[in-house]
Amino acid sequence: MTTKFEPLDSGSIPRYAGLPTFMRLPVAEPSEVDIAILGLPFDLGTTNRAGTRHGPRELRNQSSLMRRVHHVTGLSPYDRARIADCGDVITDPFDLMRSLDLISAHYASVRAAGALPLTAGGDHLISLPILRGLAADGPVGLIQFDAHSDTYDSFFNGSKYTHGTPFRRAIEEGLVDPRRFVQIGLRGAISDAGNYDYARDAGVRIIFIEEFVKRGVEDVMAEVHAIVGHQPTYVTFDIDGIDPSQAPGTGTPEIGGFSTREAQAMVRLLDGLDIIGADLVEVAPPFDPSGLTALTGATILFELLCVLAGVVEKKGTR
Amino acid sequence: MTTKFEPLDSGSIPRYAGLPTFMRLPVAEPSEVDIAILGLPFDLGTTNRAGTRHGPRELRNQSSLMRRVHHVTGLSPYDRARIADCGDVITDPFDLMRSLDLISAHYASVRAAGALPLTAGGDHLISLPILRGLAADGPVGLIQFDAHSDTYDSFFNGSKYTHGTPFRRAIEEGLVDPRRFVQIGLRGAISDAGNYDYARDAGVRIIFIEEFVKRGVEDVMAEVHAIVGHQPTYVTFDIDGIDPSQAPGTGTPEIGGFSTREAQAMVRLLDGLDIIGADLVEVAPPFDPSGLTALTGATILFELLCVLAGVVEKKGTR
Amino acid sequence: MTTKFEPLDSGSIPRYAGLPTFMRLPVAEPSEVDIAILGLPFDLGTTNRAGTRHGPRELRNQSSLMRRVHHVTGLSPYDRARIADCGDVITDPFDLMRSLDLISAHYASVRAAGALPLTAGGDHLISLPILRGLAADGPVGLIQFDAHSDTYDSFFNGSKYTHGTPFRRAIEEGLVDPRRFVQIGLRGAISDAGNYDYARDAGVRIIFIEEFVKRGVEDVMAEVHAIVGHQPTYVTFDIDGIDPSQAPGTGTPEIGGFSTREAQAMVRLLDGLDIIGADLVEVAPPFDPSGLTALTGATILFELLCVLAGVVEKKGTR
Amino acid sequence: MTTKFEPLDSGSIPRYAGLPTFMRLPVAEPSEVDIAILGLPFDLGTTNRAGTRHGPRELRNQSSLMRRVHHVTGLSPYDRARIADCGDVITDPFDLMRSLDLISAHYASVRAAGALPLTAGGDHLISLPILRGLAADGPVGLIQFDAHSDTYDSFFNGSKYTHGTPFRRAIEEGLVDPRRFVQIGLRGAISDAGNYDYARDAGVRIIFIEEFVKRGVEDVMAEVHAIVGHQPTYVTFDIDGIDPSQAPGTGTPEIGGFSTREAQAMVRLLDGLDIIGADLVEVAPPFDPSGLTALTGATILFELLCVLAGVVEKKGTR
Amino acid sequence: MTTKFEPLDSGSIPRYAGLPTFMRLPVAEPSEVDIAILGLPFDLGTTNRAGTRHGPRELRNQSSLMRRVHHVTGLSPYDRARIADCGDVITDPFDLMRSLDLISAHYASVRAAGALPLTAGGDHLISLPILRGLAADGPVGLIQFDAHSDTYDSFFNGSKYTHGTPFRRAIEEGLVDPRRFVQIGLRGAISDAGNYDYARDAGVRIIFIEEFVKRGVEDVMAEVHAIVGHQPTYVTFDIDGIDPSQAPGTGTPEIGGFSTREAQAMVRLLDGLDIIGADLVEVAPPFDPSGLTALTGATILFELLCVLAGVVEKKGTR
Amino acid sequence: MTTKFEPLDSGSIPRYAGLPTFMRLPVAEPSEVDIAILGLPFDLGTTNRAGTRHGPRELRNQSSLMRRVHHVTGLSPYDRARIADCGDVITDPFDLMRSLDLISAHYASVRAAGALPLTAGGDHLISLPILRGLAADGPVGLIQFDAHSDTYDSFFNGSKYTHGTPFRRAIEEGLVDPRRFVQIGLRGAISDAGNYDYARDAGVRIIFIEEFVKRGVEDVMAEVHAIVGHQPTYVTFDIDGIDPSQAPGTGTPEIGGFSTREAQAMVRLLDGLDIIGADLVEVAPPFDPSGLTALTGATILFELLCVLAGVVEKKGTR
Repeated sequence: MTTKFEPLDSGSIPRYAGLPTFMRLPVAEPSEVDIAILGLPFDLGTTNRAGTRHGPRELRNQSSLMRRVHHVTGLSPYDRARIADCGDVITDPFDLMRSLDLISAHYASVRAAGALPLTAGGDHLISLPILRGLAADGPVGLIQFDAHSDTYDSFFNGSKYTHGTPFRRAIEEGLVDPRRFVQIGLRGAISDAGNYDYARDAGVRIIFIEEFVKRGVEDVMAEVHAIVGHQPTYVTFDIDGIDPSQAPGTGTPEIGGFSTREAQAMVRLLDGLDIIGADLVEVAPPFDPSGLTALTGATILFELLCVLAGVVEKKGTR
Repeated sequence: MTTKFEPLDSGSIPRYAGLPTFMRLPVAEPSEVDIAILGLPFDLGTTNRAGTRHGPRELRNQSSLMRRVHHVTGLSPYDRARIADCGDVITDPFDLMRSLDLISAHYASVRAAGALPLTAGGDHLISLPILRGLAADGPVGLIQFDAHSDTYDSFFNGSKYTHGTPFRRAIEEGLVDPRRFVQIGLRGAISDAGNYDYARDAGVRIIFIEEFVKRGVEDVMAEVHAIVGHQPTYVTFDIDGIDPSQAPGTGTPEIGGFSTREAQAMVRLLDGLDIIGADLVEVAPPFDPSGLTALTGATILFELLCVLAGVVEKKGTR
Repeated sequence: MTTKFEPLDSGSIPRYAGLPTFMRLPVAEPSEVDIAILGLPFDLGTTNRAGTRHGPRELRNQSSLMRRVHHVTGLSPYDRARIADCGDVITDPFDLMRSLDLISAHYASVRAAGALPLTAGGDHLISLPILRGLAADGPVGLIQFDAHSDTYDSFFNGSKYTHGTPFRRAIEEGLVDPRRFVQIGLRGAISDAGNYDYARDAGVRIIFIEEFVKRGVEDVMAEVHAIVGHQPTYVTFDIDGIDPSQAPGTGTPEIGGFSTREAQAMVRLLDGLDIIGADLVEVAPPFDPSGLTALTGATILFELLCVLAGVVEKKGTR
Repeated sequence: MTTKFEPLDSGSIPRYAGLPTFMRLPVAEPSEVDIAILGLPFDLGTTNRAGTRHGPRELRNQSSLMRRVHHVTGLSPYDRARIADCGDVITDPFDLMRSLDLISAHYASVRAAGALPLTAGGDHLISLPILRGLAADGPVGLIQFDAHSDTYDSFFNGSKYTHGTPFRRAIEEGLVDPRRFVQIGLRGAISDAGNYDYARDAGVRIIFIEEFVKRGVEDVMAEVHAIVGHQPTYVTFDIDGIDPSQAPGTGTPEIGGFSTREAQAMVRLLDGLDIIGADLVEVAPPFDPSGLTALTGATILFELLCVLAGVVEKKGTR
Repeated sequence: MTTKFEPLDSGSIPRYAGLPTFMRLPVAEPSEVDIAILGLPFDLGTTNRAGTRHGPRELRNQSSLMRRVHHVTGLSPYDRARIADCGDVITDPFDLMRSLDLISAHYASVRAAGALPLTAGGDHLISLPILRGLAADGPVGLIQFDAHSDTYDSFFNGSKYTHGTPFRRAIEEGLVDPRRFVQIGLRGAISDAGNYDYARDAGVRIIFIEEFVKRGVEDVMAEVHAIVGHQPTYVTFDIDGIDPSQAPGTGTPEIGGFSTREAQAMVRLLDGLDIIGADLVEVAPPFDPSGLTALTGATILFELLCVLAGVVEKKGTR
Repeated sequence: MTTKFEPLDSGSIPRYAGLPTFMRLPVAEPSEVDIAILGLPFDLGTTNRAGTRHGPRELRNQSSLMRRVHHVTGLSPYDRARIADCGDVITDPFDLMRSLDLISAHYASVRAAGALPLTAGGDHLISLPILRGLAADGPVGLIQFDAHSDTYDSFFNGSKYTHGTPFRRAIEEGLVDPRRFVQIGLRGAISDAGNYDYARDAGVRIIFIEEFVKRGVEDVMAEVHAIVGHQPTYVTFDIDGIDPSQAPGTGTPEIGGFSTREAQAMVRLLDGLDIIGADLVEVAPPFDPSGLTALTGATILFELLCVLAGVVEKKGTR
């Protein structure tokens, strides 16, 4: 497949030159592409250290270091699908509920345009309105890489829409099928012992980091395939799933996380699933002075992009 | 006056030891003191770079470097008034309007307790609910040190409560007498040419930085005294009034601001006015890697404290 | 067991608000609690890069991110023991020997009050006077996680009290039983080839990082249990035992250290031993711009706290 | 004049959202506008600390904080001229001489398109090929704000094209009329006592910082007007002219420089001259961790833009 | 063997005192020593983020933390060979080709003086002129630890001498025997799918990070011994081979790299080979705010030094 | 005068290359030169934030940016006097009193060798033992640029030797004539109102920053000349005298200080006095992430060097 949606050639235009779009790609509308990379600058769902509103800009910036062809598969996503930077989703910094509606509407339109969305967040609350926009045909499967379950009921006088609660809402709203929902990498002390009960009672499979370490990437990912099966599945990757030595710039870091090696290996093993979209969330540049978190995030976005390109190729282009 | 409200003695307890309360003071209730230093961690009013929710903690931290006696007057505020760290005002990170009510109620109770509040913010929106809590007997005078007017009408689909709008609301609500309201240090490009019209039409005196530089501290402050007179007056100091070389850690920095020398000289010349409270706002630690902004802020808080102690001494203690 | 010694609830008081006490706990006297968390700001024993005098403040600061219940055991230390922030141990920044005496006396009084001390240092020399205060009934066992042996004889013209010498002193003074003393994680070049001879000759078991890597956490910790047995044992955790990618802010970093995963797993396997106290030392905030070292340290303190709570529960409360 | 070349409205699209073009302007070709803002990422002329190749990206990033209307004049450049981000000038990172030719050709084409160029560098060598592109009709006047004269003959075995030599070359090549060339702000030790002889002998007027401080902005700028007169004049602003407290991120900082207040006042007094283009050079982001240098640079760019818009308005649009 | 080439004794001269030479060694000429440690400040070969010109200074600075005796072998390189800091190789910052000649000549003279060179770079292009200086007797073996192959043909209009191309040149020039050339740790997306073809076609053995992880250090290093055999072999260690969490300060970081543990283990297993020199390249201090990259680099240099000392000891001193 | 003591030529050896000696000078013994530049890494006198032990290394590092000829006088110190880097004064990090003796002895020997010492500290306590070494012929005059008086009696249980007390000791010991002692720039709150009484009662002239600002540099320096007269005088420059925006990296910063412009102007006006030595103290690199403080300090050292060279020239060389 030939396409005009190619990254700038770093052999003629240096990586430090040019506007920092995602992966150095052209800017386009979702209707022109198979995969739309979107920024979603937003942190109104954050309970402690904000800053993910600046995430998309730094992820774009660091994505200037990405290249064309995956060294393991030898394949380039840009040969397999039309891909572009489709800009930022605009929200309202003073109205949380209106922002959720703006996001849902945006993703419904991306879906209507026929593009698979790959989103650079933003705090983890954004996954809820994204799912509202995408899961129009019934509950989808969900694969969550994360240090936290994000299935609390509410915080602070009953606030139901925070970055600690999106997936309880998603189950309640019928956006996600809890029996096709798996969480990997959870760890860290919790506020009360019943913290994980809701998710477990609903049928969600929780793989704590200790189980993950014991079993290894391949065994865990085989189970993930078994859980979500061949039906439509969404992937959400919270950067705090990765160890803070490799991703310090996030609001709620937890030591003892995935290595980037493990993270990359897991994302590669998503290949073959029916992924309908993915996000990478919780990169908070004000806490990332070295830029390493955004670099890690940009590389995970590239890995996810390769998986999504495989989905496009398999289905055939529109 | 003898008082138990003394800072820790740095000649026996090193400045790096002990809990970092404001000025190394004891923690107490407003009802026990003449001046209550309060933290107000809050940034829901911020339009661009958030982070002032972390301001009070770093201002407390840097205030460990403060000492007892002002070197110009030879007076110690702790000899003139009972002063304590009265803790943080707690707000709701997911409910802006409820937060404003929580703040108003808190300051009404501080006022009822008979203490003068000195507040470490927080973004500039906090001045509005503080004034609601304090201006129960009618409009007060207002002295604002700032790079920005903060008298916009609204942002983003009509949001009326942001850190760019508090003083228009305060005038509309009758909390501030616009003819006894003076703004000093304004500068920086603006969104539209009519930006300052509301304030000017209402009778507010705007002293841009250019006029300030031409006239000098003493002349300007003489006019300030003439404007606010001997009636109750509130003081609000936005750290972005100071030049970003001396206060980089703020959400909306503007080059060409006050030097700290000028800022200190101006605050000292507030002496003799009937100040009913003061705040220091917009310190955003995530953008202050060296801690200099919080150090500058803590020193301005100390200067304000000395002025407030003079007010207490003049009125006699309760 | 019900107790008033609870951390602030982060669902109603945001983590960025309030005074940063250890784990957001109340401040209390050792006599009121089962476990006393103490700060010990001190760096007079440091040979190269100082800064651990600022350690306790930043460990408190980052401990705002800790929560109540351990996710592996499902147990909360606050349900099992009364625990508080018991303030800082005050030393004399110009008198090393007097400081050692002040520390010893302080820990003797904590012991007399019946509380188990958990200390946030400070450089590694502090373990010596802590042991002097605690080992009144004869030599104790010692488990040391560290990159360095700290059993040199002296430096610089015969200085015997430095952060490179505490454990030789502790053996000489009969505070530690060298046959119940194990060191784990040692590595890095040494000043002379006989460096480890003193410790080995005295009967100390040294497990270098290479042996640790080969055998793994579980095997090593089984040997640790065998070495210290069921008698009273002190635990000292030097943050430089952990890899500098996860704990860069320390005076003498050595690459190739424990991962935090390994460190957490080891500390959890201290469960069941008769621990009489523990410390976490060598966090030097001036070399920790991102705060990651203090976060790692605060999390290790939480893991140690869970182990100590188990000791308290087993023995019954006073 | 109405124009579609407007910055994004920060009241509906937050400043942290969207691609960071210069001043949040649309991207366009020079032929579409009156003033072309160009990035010129380049540091092959640097003798010591490189990094200005990253300058345009960070200047664009910080320019997100700029607004529409100058607060002193009440005028918006966007009402007076068509202005756009015209992208980066691409050079060859391995061929200095070829890069100079690429730059010259690019500016010749901008000139041919009828746009006034405003350039964000890049090290100071870029002014030479820019002048080559612009001074096709004979020597132009030159106003240089700088800590250094940049009129050395050569370095390192005779290298004639470095950031310390552009203006000797420009005089030699007849691009600049040395009697219409003024340098303001020079300071700092020099390599040999005859350093300034070439410039002085050629007729260049050097105003050292000491003379500047003694005379003040207005007197100096009156002389500048007298020197360059009403003929075509280029303006080059080296960020190291400004004090390193306000612009630390540069390769060759010199203490004791302009304050930003002074810099802004000087640029405003360029109004009325026949400016044919301007550049802002030597912003080196790797040495600017706080972003303050790029913020200062972006604000100076805005001030220069306002002056250029006045030139456009005076001449009438094309 | 007794030698005057000893590091300063940190027990009498603190590590923070004295000039920061490599390993705190004396400065000497190559002709006086068996192993010459050289700085090579150079970054003219860099395609994106420059800064390695500052590498040698920071590597020297951090090497102040190194000690005498390797803790695994119990041997000190300073007992086995005469070793000194032989200063910096001076190049021309404005002439890439002349710089390559200066470097080649310098290493030819080091070789003629009979010293083994250990080089602290500089970007990876320096390995080419080093090999030109050393491989006078025919092609040598090459062991490359790296994230990238650095066997591109050219960049930017045909530039053949960049940090992405040295090893293709070295093969073409007959400096390296491609059948005795092994690359370990390669990873990261590539610009085109044929990227590795040249190296593979030439007979180079590429061990990607995925293969390395699967097989482990010992198996891989056994193969390395088999590949290079007992003939003269050069070692080049690109710091970006190591994971960016442990070496962030480099121009082209790639996540998922070697741990320092793995890197140290591999270097130790070079023992027994006929190493004729080694370099450690691509440390870029402007991107290394914490100094961790330089610390990691200095420790790898110490490990390489121990290997080289073994070579000297085996051959007997001159 | 011709001399071999010349800085490296930055036109042939780049500033980033070579060992970072002071001003890029050769290393020599005091007996070989007229002016000995010495490092004095020491911070045992520090009450709060330590780190000046790392000062000399970073001052050397930043002094790589200095050049040969003063741009105002057109004179080079290297043409007027023999000047070298005479290494670091070694002290004992565990014995304050012994360190003071080591320093005194070192400076007595420098004096005996006939060289004028220019010292890069170290905390301010070092001025005491330096004066002990230099004032062998009776009390000398003293010019102190500083934010603090440093004439306290004692801290912490009677410690008499701290960086807050050196000048009271110096007066008591008859090293300094208090009537020929002037302090300039003092400011900041103080611990008790009688803080300055000792100095004033002894006859010391204190010029607070407020008086300095009102009178200006020239008037103040004329008084300084009148106070110290033509007799031997020592100069001590505490970097915290300068505003923290230009010198943040220091242990006890105070806002509202000298600008570097003012500082440079004052040091230049020392010309003509009989200066017997000078120091620049309190640069604390761990609190100076941008290096600006060390750059400012290195430039002040260069200005002091020019003044000392004038003294040498006037007296004739030995």
